[in-house]
Amino acid sequence: MTPPLITAPALTRCCTPFKPMYERICRALATSERTLVVGHVNPDGDVIGSCLALASALRALGKEAVCYNESPVPMVYNFIPGAGEVVDQVVLPGDFDAVAVLDCSDIERVGMIARQIQKMPLVVNLDHHATNEGYGHLACVEDNACATAEIIYRLIKKWGLSFDLTMATGLYTAILTDTGSFRFANTSHTAFSICNEMVSCGVDPYHVAQHVYGDYSLGRIKLLNMALGSIELLEDGSLSFMTLTRHMMARTGTSLEDADGMINYAKQIEDVRMAAMIAEDPHQAGHYYISLRSDGSIDVSELATNFGGGGHVRAAGFNTDLPPALLKERILEWSRGQNMCRDIHQHLRLLNI
Amino acid sequence: MTPPLITAPALTRCCTPFKPMYERICRALATSERTLVVGHVNPDGDVIGSCLALASALRALGKEAVCYNESPVPMVYNFIPGAGEVVDQVVLPGDFDAVAVLDCSDIERVGMIARQIQKMPLVVNLDHHATNEGYGHLACVEDNACATAEIIYRLIKKWGLSFDLTMATGLYTAILTDTGSFRFANTSHTAFSICNEMVSCGVDPYHVAQHVYGDYSLGRIKLLNMALGSIELLEDGSLSFMTLTRHMMARTGTSLEDADGMINYAKQIEDVRMAAMIAEDPHQAGHYYISLRSDGSIDVSELATNFGGGGHVRAAGFNTDLPPALLKERILEWSRGQNMCRDIHQHLRLLNI
Repeated sequence: MTPPLITAPALTRCCTPFKPMYERICRALATSERTLVVGHVNPDGDVIGSCLALASALRALGKEAVCYNESPVPMVYNFIPGAGEVVDQVVLPGDFDAVAVLDCSDIERVGMIARQIQKMPLVVNLDHHATNEGYGHLACVEDNACATAEIIYRLIKKWGLSFDLTMATGLYTAILTDTGSFRFANTSHTAFSICNEMVSCGVDPYHVAQHVYGDYSLGRIKLLNMALGSIELLEDGSLSFMTLTRHMMARTGTSLEDADGMINYAKQIEDVRMAAMIAEDPHQAGHYYISLRSDGSIDVSELATNFGGGGHVRAAGFNTDLPPALLKERILEWSRGQNMCRDIHQHLRLLNI
Repeated sequence: MTPPLITAPALTRCCTPFKPMYERICRALATSERTLVVGHVNPDGDVIGSCLALASALRALGKEAVCYNESPVPMVYNFIPGAGEVVDQVVLPGDFDAVAVLDCSDIERVGMIARQIQKMPLVVNLDHHATNEGYGHLACVEDNACATAEIIYRLIKKWGLSFDLTMATGLYTAILTDTGSFRFANTSHTAFSICNEMVSCGVDPYHVAQHVYGDYSLGRIKLLNMALGSIELLEDGSLSFMTLTRHMMARTGTSLEDADGMINYAKQIEDVRMAAMIAEDPHQAGHYYISLRSDGSIDVSELATNFGGGGHVRAAGFNTDLPPALLKERILEWSRGQNMCRDIHQHLRLLNI
């Protein structure tokens, strides 16, 4: 029997005690014969790793599972066993009796199939973003989890399954990438504990790191050079913008995927409290993907939410069709409300060298 | 009683079974009333973290311990509790009845006090380098250990001590840095297991990472931008040059220290088998420091040796007064002898964007 659709986030969140919700989700997914496992567009390591791990677990339970993502699997994650089976076309409801939505704070983050998913008989929402809206029939939102992978890890444990190489590699890669190689504030005791277990299950940390952080194409180095050259510092150096246009990507033969992580350079400049990377969609002129990072003193998920996005205090994002000049003005305006500037005088410095 | 001085590495190495050697070392150090704890010159995170952890453990046993290093503690490690107590002057034998030498494959690596150390009544050699010569009265050389910190961890465990914040932060920082943030081939199950335990003992991974990999000055970001712009690819992309002049450093308000690690960008480009960074001395026009990196297929220490320098297969360096154009020609000439080019036709590509 399908549980009733709950809309109020407070009711659906998997807060203390966690266990009953995990049990309900484990039972519900194990009852489903065929589950669609979905993550957000422009997937990161947590999406790909967690989706593949969950699908493999469902198969180990004797069920069918299909991984779907509107965007292609980024090249760097192709080494994860099963990555080749992620599809970008699916017909709903098809034969699916459940959909598991992973790492999406908002159901719209899955892309075009969001509407069809909402009509499905069982939607399970598994996420670690504090801004998660609590959509779905069953939702487990743990904003203390280092990654959505931590939630998938717990489900697999509750099912009593052994970790095969797909699950172990998926979860390890998800945690490695979502913690920025164990450097971000979400690097917890649990992150190390799970990774320790995954290495014991056969994951080779060097092999994974070589794939994830391995060689750069020459184009990516060129794009990084352009990205660094585009950095603008405002508000006495407390706010930084980095801008990547589709022309830059065309000139360097790169894609949005190559811009992954580049915002960290804008964030890493001393005194910067908030950094925004504005990356134009290479396939759609005038459409922009905005990544936001903060040092923790400003909640960038609030800013992202204003634009229909979401995320965490230190890392958030949204999409927009606003032109960059106007967008920067809006971000600047919001940031002023946060009392970011450490000096009375606004001081504009450009990285124009 | 002091054990006899053993010189043959085979006899002193702590191979299987490890336990007897750990027990002997634990007993010997716990018997010493005052121990000098020493690491190699130009210390890294493993040296500083391991030395501070061992000294703290000896004090917890009610003994005296002094940490010595010929070089100053690098700024990024000053946050480790006790870092301020590392001395760079010491008189031997003084009141010391033992010296623990950490992370030094060769006793000469400690610097000027090497000779005095060799006259001490008890020298304990604790290291994880396969090339360790097995010097000292007692030696524990575990080349499978992810860092020397892993050996110190085991000693502390054998002593049955609780990990205080100095020990925990020291060991965590040592493993974080020596595994390249859990990315290098020495990232083991044990590395995760120890770090997991250290986090449980109170280490904040984000706090440590912020210190170790923290903010860049704006000048350093500008210098990186210039460095990327200077990259030249030769020999069908298998050889890369990066050039930093003293004018670049003057314009960005940076020093040679800021160029640290930048060669990795030149090395990280796919197909590059050897990278050379030519950095001019900011205080001496026309004098250059050359850093070399290889993917392991070429021994760059051989090239460095030709110019009076030295190093390892994958990382080496030298200084020269040769003008960059001539220097590049010489390096190119040598590289051709290594049969680096994968294509018959030499193809020159410049990162001119």
